[in-house]
Amino acid sequence: MTFEQWTRSVLERVETALENYLPAETTEPAKLHEAMRYAVLGGGKRVRPLLCHAAGELTGARAECLDAAAAALEMIHVYSLVHDDMPCMDDDELRRGKPTVHVKYDEATALLVGDALQSQAFVVLTSDVLAPQQQASLVRELAFASGSLGMCGGQAIDLASVGHTLTRPQLETMHRMKTGALLRAAVRMGALAGDTPDADALRSLDAYAAAVGLAFQVVDDILDVTTDSATLGKTAGKDAKDGKPTYVSIIGLDASRALAAQLRSDAHAALAPFGARAQRLAELADLVVNRVS
Amino acid sequence: MTFEQWTRSVLERVETALENYLPAETTEPAKLHEAMRYAVLGGGKRVRPLLCHAAGELTGARAECLDAAAAALEMIHVYSLVHDDMPCMDDDELRRGKPTVHVKYDEATALLVGDALQSQAFVVLTSDVLAPQQQASLVRELAFASGSLGMCGGQAIDLASVGHTLTRPQLETMHRMKTGALLRAAVRMGALAGDTPDADALRSLDAYAAAVGLAFQVVDDILDVTTDSATLGKTAGKDAKDGKPTYVSIIGLDASRALAAQLRSDAHAALAPFGARAQRLAELADLVVNRVS
Repeated sequence: MTFEQWTRSVLERVETALENYLPAETTEPAKLHEAMRYAVLGGGKRVRPLLCHAAGELTGARAECLDAAAAALEMIHVYSLVHDDMPCMDDDELRRGKPTVHVKYDEATALLVGDALQSQAFVVLTSDVLAPQQQASLVRELAFASGSLGMCGGQAIDLASVGHTLTRPQLETMHRMKTGALLRAAVRMGALAGDTPDADALRSLDAYAAAVGLAFQVVDDILDVTTDSATLGKTAGKDAKDGKPTYVSIIGLDASRALAAQLRSDAHAALAPFGARAQRLAELADLVVNRVS
Repeated sequence: MTFEQWTRSVLERVETALENYLPAETTEPAKLHEAMRYAVLGGGKRVRPLLCHAAGELTGARAECLDAAAAALEMIHVYSLVHDDMPCMDDDELRRGKPTVHVKYDEATALLVGDALQSQAFVVLTSDVLAPQQQASLVRELAFASGSLGMCGGQAIDLASVGHTLTRPQLETMHRMKTGALLRAAVRMGALAGDTPDADALRSLDAYAAAVGLAFQVVDDILDVTTDSATLGKTAGKDAKDGKPTYVSIIGLDASRALAAQLRSDAHAALAPFGARAQRLAELADLVVNRVS
């Protein structure tokens, strides 16, 4: 199977899983469910689900188990986008090429969509397709990565940094929490959905995820200044306009590109112990660095 | 031990558990953690933790297990209060006798405090004090009760009902989701934290929780029109002012009082199979109906 075929097949599985794990839009309260589905379905790069499935192949995880983990990860990711786009946060009107949830519906609905998607992620992780021990370990990974020491904490640092100059280590800390924690969880949860990986394997996967997570953010910062809104599906040039520190603003465009290439090499190096079995993870590192939107 | 002594001892345990299960306010991001602790600690009636501990006594649950379940329940409850008080929702400035989180800090912080408290609840439920099987079943209960078919869904119906006339069954559906689901989860989670209860016991506890949950809301509606803000610790008369349907507005004050008394009897009746072992649950039903704030 080529990487493109593998990607397409995973994306189809994940879309079906999300369809099935979200309440139907005819179920009351219908407007809330319609808005949850509007936010989640039919868009997005699904980077976390792809990482989750690729990592699960290393530990022999069943595809149904990975679908549940991937759906939960994407629900958490989308909830964070819906809340981040609200007027009291980044105040953005375009996401995945569509009006943001508070623009399409209203602010109160956007707030509830995010809240309910977070709950739903944990409902999904406790579905019977996973053994109870796995349910517990996947919930622990996802909850920790989402909370104040992970994604939410990174977002808080991001908000506090607007208009301030961050050092490069401070910027890295922020991104490690804001986007890195959930990308790392995607890799770990995929692995944990199969045969329990040993500590060495988890350490290698963590090193891989750290490099990919940071690369993802560096590339985001590059694309924010080099690409137009139509290609991105979100408002381009927004970080610079909002006075947010980025890799491009701190180390410049050329050094940012060199850093992304270095992080891609680091990611590949971290996968060495797995040999050819880590092919999909290696290809995903390339995808993250080479993407144009 | 008298009921007052039991209540005091549980409240002390729960406060300590919340202290310990929340990140320290010196941990970065410090402002977020300070705001999370501001929202959670030192206030509130802690009805859900009390119900959880009382139900756990029926199934021999260890106190440490009940502390974890109770802390998680209270974190979910407080996150919902923080978000509900935001300007795009109920826009309230007073809660538990203190300025609401978005007034004391800012809206973005309030949004993140709620989001991070929800995650933290699930972190707490996967702590080692609980067996993996219990972690999984408690997460399932709490996530389901919190989401779009429970608390968030009830809130969505509440928002949609402003300025509309609801029938009494519609009002009951809304409350069963908005507050009833989490109160029911409190009782079930307490029981599930001990020896697995049989289906009959869970059915009796559900009937008890349904009656107490509805009684709680009927009394809330009564207090909203009969008590001042200082006693309530939140803005009195707000539902009427906001055009929200309440038991008092639909069936009147006297009928609401009679309904609360009936629901208290229903709650006691549901506990009959447990005999004297359900003493604390029975006393809590009385507390919910007789409270003055």
